[in-house]
Amino acid sequence: MNEKYAELRTRLAEVEDLRRAAHLLEWDQETMMPPLGVSSRAEQLASLGRIAHERFTASEIGRLLDELASFEGEMAYDSDEASLIRVVRRDYEKARKVPPELHGERARAASIAQPVWAEARKRSDFSLFLPYLQKNIDLTHRYVECMDDGRDIYDVLLDDYEQDLTTVEVNAVFDELKRELPPLIEAAAASNGEEDAFMRGPFSPDAQHEFSLQVIRGFGFDPEGWRLDRSVHPFASSAGPNDIRLTSRYAEDDLHSLFSAMHECGHGLYENGVDLALDRTPLCEGVSYAFHESQSRMWENLVGRSRPFWRHFYPRLQQAFPALAQVDEEAFYRAVNRVQPSLIRVDADEVTYNLHVILRFELEQEMLTGKLALADVPEAWDARMKEYLGIDVPDARRGALQDVHWSGGSFGYFSTYSLGNVVSVQLWEKVREAMPDLDDQIEAGEFRELREWLRENVHRHGRKFAPKELLDRIVGGPIDPGPYLRYLKDKLSDTAGVGAVA
Amino acid sequence: MNEKYAELRTRLAEVEDLRRAAHLLEWDQETMMPPLGVSSRAEQLASLGRIAHERFTASEIGRLLDELASFEGEMAYDSDEASLIRVVRRDYEKARKVPPELHGERARAASIAQPVWAEARKRSDFSLFLPYLQKNIDLTHRYVECMDDGRDIYDVLLDDYEQDLTTVEVNAVFDELKRELPPLIEAAAASNGEEDAFMRGPFSPDAQHEFSLQVIRGFGFDPEGWRLDRSVHPFASSAGPNDIRLTSRYAEDDLHSLFSAMHECGHGLYENGVDLALDRTPLCEGVSYAFHESQSRMWENLVGRSRPFWRHFYPRLQQAFPALAQVDEEAFYRAVNRVQPSLIRVDADEVTYNLHVILRFELEQEMLTGKLALADVPEAWDARMKEYLGIDVPDARRGALQDVHWSGGSFGYFSTYSLGNVVSVQLWEKVREAMPDLDDQIEAGEFRELREWLRENVHRHGRKFAPKELLDRIVGGPIDPGPYLRYLKDKLSDTAGVGAVA
Repeated sequence: MNEKYAELRTRLAEVEDLRRAAHLLEWDQETMMPPLGVSSRAEQLASLGRIAHERFTASEIGRLLDELASFEGEMAYDSDEASLIRVVRRDYEKARKVPPELHGERARAASIAQPVWAEARKRSDFSLFLPYLQKNIDLTHRYVECMDDGRDIYDVLLDDYEQDLTTVEVNAVFDELKRELPPLIEAAAASNGEEDAFMRGPFSPDAQHEFSLQVIRGFGFDPEGWRLDRSVHPFASSAGPNDIRLTSRYAEDDLHSLFSAMHECGHGLYENGVDLALDRTPLCEGVSYAFHESQSRMWENLVGRSRPFWRHFYPRLQQAFPALAQVDEEAFYRAVNRVQPSLIRVDADEVTYNLHVILRFELEQEMLTGKLALADVPEAWDARMKEYLGIDVPDARRGALQDVHWSGGSFGYFSTYSLGNVVSVQLWEKVREAMPDLDDQIEAGEFRELREWLRENVHRHGRKFAPKELLDRIVGGPIDPGPYLRYLKDKLSDTAGVGAVA
Repeated sequence: MNEKYAELRTRLAEVEDLRRAAHLLEWDQETMMPPLGVSSRAEQLASLGRIAHERFTASEIGRLLDELASFEGEMAYDSDEASLIRVVRRDYEKARKVPPELHGERARAASIAQPVWAEARKRSDFSLFLPYLQKNIDLTHRYVECMDDGRDIYDVLLDDYEQDLTTVEVNAVFDELKRELPPLIEAAAASNGEEDAFMRGPFSPDAQHEFSLQVIRGFGFDPEGWRLDRSVHPFASSAGPNDIRLTSRYAEDDLHSLFSAMHECGHGLYENGVDLALDRTPLCEGVSYAFHESQSRMWENLVGRSRPFWRHFYPRLQQAFPALAQVDEEAFYRAVNRVQPSLIRVDADEVTYNLHVILRFELEQEMLTGKLALADVPEAWDARMKEYLGIDVPDARRGALQDVHWSGGSFGYFSTYSLGNVVSVQLWEKVREAMPDLDDQIEAGEFRELREWLRENVHRHGRKFAPKELLDRIVGGPIDPGPYLRYLKDKLSDTAGVGAVA
């Protein structure tokens, strides 16, 4: 192996070890850490982050990347070697533009803002959060200025979550969703009765946990290399390709939380599926937020809310929850696919979810360009909820204060949730082409071939290709909401009797 | 604050954050990590260790220490500032003598030897382990050579666990134990019948866990800043002064494991009790292995095996384990204090334990000086077990292969276990002077004043003073086995009717 390349890998491996250690510390904080540990933990995470940033942006890395330019040219574009050098060079150049002080200041501002946001949400008082939001917005502007490359502010931010994606491209997708979804939602909601009262339990959290495990073991969860724990907010994390940590939460009065574990398992399968040849490099993770979300959404919705899935699992669910003995499979299938405008994004159904996201995507841009004064955000939020979902927001807790993202300074993140939905169905159409008997397999509780297809076509590449490249390699084109909208229409005609509405 | 001093603290804080992150990763490995995570974890720990060592031994630290010499002189000897500079200078100079390569090679050899040792123990085949033991011995010699200061090899090793302690000093203590203990043990064992069959259960592990929690909550365990989990080998660890992690294990047929949690809680109270002014410095931990063990042994034995302790807790234990309803308190008290020679150090009683340690202390020196060929270790072990405890060793699994220490290259460690016993009673005599009603408090389940005494006199100082200094400050003299031997004789005359035997 080229000596310089080996040296680069050694340096990157060390940075990756620090990042993984930080992941584990964060996982522990949400699942195991006693409450008083929080201040020491914040210092540890800040130190690990600072040292990883410092080592990754060290000029020795830049020197090695320069020296490896000709080696890169000799290797095939899609070789691990050329890909590593190419992707790391992009990461490096981007990271070098941000002074370590600003990097630290953003992290610090986020960690200070987060408890204030939590308190503001609890009290439903946006004004409490306002100065901290302002600080995060100001720091975001300073961050964007560092990039100094003539792009629009929001394009710079999107790139942190979805490389090379532009606001214009997102708008094209979202405009179509904004046009097509409202009539679908209206028609579906009109058909709702009170027939899903059985979904409100009580269902024992322990039994939900056991059933979740049963399902995701079918998907590929393996106790030799995975864990499923409980946390306030479900998430997936990993401390290595064979150390995957999922969390879920269970409410006694809501069976929908079963889908959390499926969702997080989708993320976990992605991290678990990256080619081990990329281990301990920055390429050993999912390529983008939208691609990651495409995987979690696929297992949660395209698999987990499908008819063949419940044909297999519903008898098992009835066994776990005898109260469901009186509820037939069809009624249950309709209940888990019920569409109904509601206040909270994370509890929203598969269809209305996208309008929650679009609202945030639009408000963020207006906040960042100054078109919307921060003090007016709650009012604007409420107005748009009324416009898009016909919902009256009773208070800021269930309105503009419901999400954690802005307290963490994460602007540009939200859109990837809906883009993940869109991408998931673009991939799903390819899966269907490759596996004509997909429904039969799901109905038999067989997920191996699906998982292997995803591993082969998506997971194993990690970050070798840019998200647009990867999508093009698989579906032969750019992001396109068409398949997703067709899927939703089919689903709603099946579950809610919604006919041709558009 | 002096600017240079502030810079030193900043640099040390970062190193300490790395070390604490490593502690958390190690804790997770033993309690939570799925088995396949082990190879990624090994890399992460190696990287954290390497970076922490590199940053601690950076020449900037040396420069700051030099520049702070006059500031140190201006500050009182026992001020935090002078103590930090003094102790860090010693640590720094010692760490600088060891080339990073050797540091890494020792860690790597240990991590390679450990699974081999585990396999050798399983198969009871010492020859399997032999080449790895040889490697560890060779590396230990290279390590000692780095120190190059004319001290005897074993003195150099002892210093890593117990600063400034010499082999001559340990021998003086151990010679007295070797002389005094065997007749005590013989007399005590002679009085043993089969009256403690009730100790072999079955006792539900969950109920043991709950009872352990009840006890250590009395000692000072606080769920806001502590955890108690299960692991194969009990240990105490911390990821911060208010993030204390204890583990225990429970066997259905052995109630003695109750004492594990008390033991580990003693370690935890020490880490939890260091003055927060020393937080994120190398002084924020127990001063030495013997001092740490003095704290765990004190809570396990001097408190947990005492008559007043069980006067308080025995009715509660009977409530938790109704099978004990038929066993009176006196019989139980004698059972938990039963003295009986046995094969395994970690299962040994309070008295015979020390002879297990002395055997290892002696064999280690002979191995390191070449007096004992490594291939002959099992034979020498067995002969000495016969000589000291009258026990026939059936196989190497229960003989020379029982402990993990040598596979980790930890030579010089063992003696601190017994020295901890000795120190614990030296401190205990001072506690008794300060708290004439100590027994009454324990019998009332009151441990606050005892804990506060330990915090004030031992814990809060962390590593500010050398272990010998600290002991002298508290007891006004050096290590002395007298109090410990008096305590054992009193205990055995109480529990086993052993009269004046020496």
